[in-house]
Amino acid sequence: MKITILTIAPEQFEGFFRDHVIERAIALGRLELRITDIRDYAEGSFRAVDDSPYGGGAGMILRAAPIADAIRAAKVPGEESMVVLFSPAGERYSQKTAVSFAGADHLILVCGHYEGIDARVFEMADHVCSMGDYILSGGEIGAMAVADSVARLLPGVLRPESLEEESFTRGLLEYPQYTRPAEFEGMSVPGVLLSGDHGAVSAWRREKALEITRKYRPDLLEDREDPS
Amino acid sequence: MKITILTIAPEQFEGFFRDHVIERAIALGRLELRITDIRDYAEGSFRAVDDSPYGGGAGMILRAAPIADAIRAAKVPGEESMVVLFSPAGERYSQKTAVSFAGADHLILVCGHYEGIDARVFEMADHVCSMGDYILSGGEIGAMAVADSVARLLPGVLRPESLEEESFTRGLLEYPQYTRPAEFEGMSVPGVLLSGDHGAVSAWRREKALEITRKYRPDLLEDREDPS
Repeated sequence: MKITILTIAPEQFEGFFRDHVIERAIALGRLELRITDIRDYAEGSFRAVDDSPYGGGAGMILRAAPIADAIRAAKVPGEESMVVLFSPAGERYSQKTAVSFAGADHLILVCGHYEGIDARVFEMADHVCSMGDYILSGGEIGAMAVADSVARLLPGVLRPESLEEESFTRGLLEYPQYTRPAEFEGMSVPGVLLSGDHGAVSAWRREKALEITRKYRPDLLEDREDPS
Repeated sequence: MKITILTIAPEQFEGFFRDHVIERAIALGRLELRITDIRDYAEGSFRAVDDSPYGGGAGMILRAAPIADAIRAAKVPGEESMVVLFSPAGERYSQKTAVSFAGADHLILVCGHYEGIDARVFEMADHVCSMGDYILSGGEIGAMAVADSVARLLPGVLRPESLEEESFTRGLLEYPQYTRPAEFEGMSVPGVLLSGDHGAVSAWRREKALEITRKYRPDLLEDREDPS
């Protein structure tokens, strides 16, 4: 699949190509990742991408035209593309959304700016996603989160066993994990994990996942398709 | 303030120093940002930071000792530091958390890895935060989100008017913003914003913010301290 990120801060993505699932998805030929500078679509010698808000107020608003042009330029005829914008008014981004995005031919992720983006651009969005109830300086970090969470679902990027384990506990929080040493600063690994009894280990993990979910996120239990 | 990020993937933060609020907070002397490689605290010639899970299963678990040692090394005696770990079982990270973190002397953000981190490390956490219900390949993107959302709140980083506008609509979603041109691809800017009537503009924005919040996030209205 292809992911195009439209941003006014392409330099922020330098390290992102070293994100190990992104790197792996690209190396396997499963992902083509493009970072496009919205400024390339702003006319005039200053290539201004923003302007002051109608009605007054602090800050600068990203202009509609350069973003609209960049979105149109990213689209390839005949290819199914999905345009994603970010806003706290959007649907909360979740693993379910990640799974559906991973099935797209082309995701176009549009990074806004905390001061605002001309509201008319939202008419071009197929999805508006909210990453959480906190204010970031731009959409870049949200775009990285979407690209990372989608890339790791592409075929061959992770070992199938890793994804299977996730699906085993689908809809539950993770059970606690431990590695060597068995004793660390006075804290021991639960005995069952050292027992070699695979059935007992599975049962313990399932019970722990349920217990942790019940304690911290009871809402997830209500939403589950497979209550057990 | 100081933010220390502990990670096994320091190269992912290359572009993060170009994040404009991070850059500005550092330039103003308000923020000291350190990226620490957890591998520097792993003993042995291979400096292994992970090992297979007790009880079996796919994937590798980050070992407790290198992380614990890196956390201890980051702490400076006499300074108030907060250790933050990420987990879907944690409290949902929000703007309220960002505000409280911005008051700390030193935030130590520990990036896990999607396959897991030895559960005993959580004993060292002052806060466990969840960034959302989706799976990322590591805690790096969450750490960037925390650092960015905190850095923009430090004195002088943003224009005071920008933060005031946020507090004006505190607890509500943002009203729509527009910039030139008044007519874009058949879509017009609402007339009131062109009227020059500041009172009418304010009233319209407040009404829109309430309307959007009521439509998309009615839960925010229930939680508001200042219902109006």
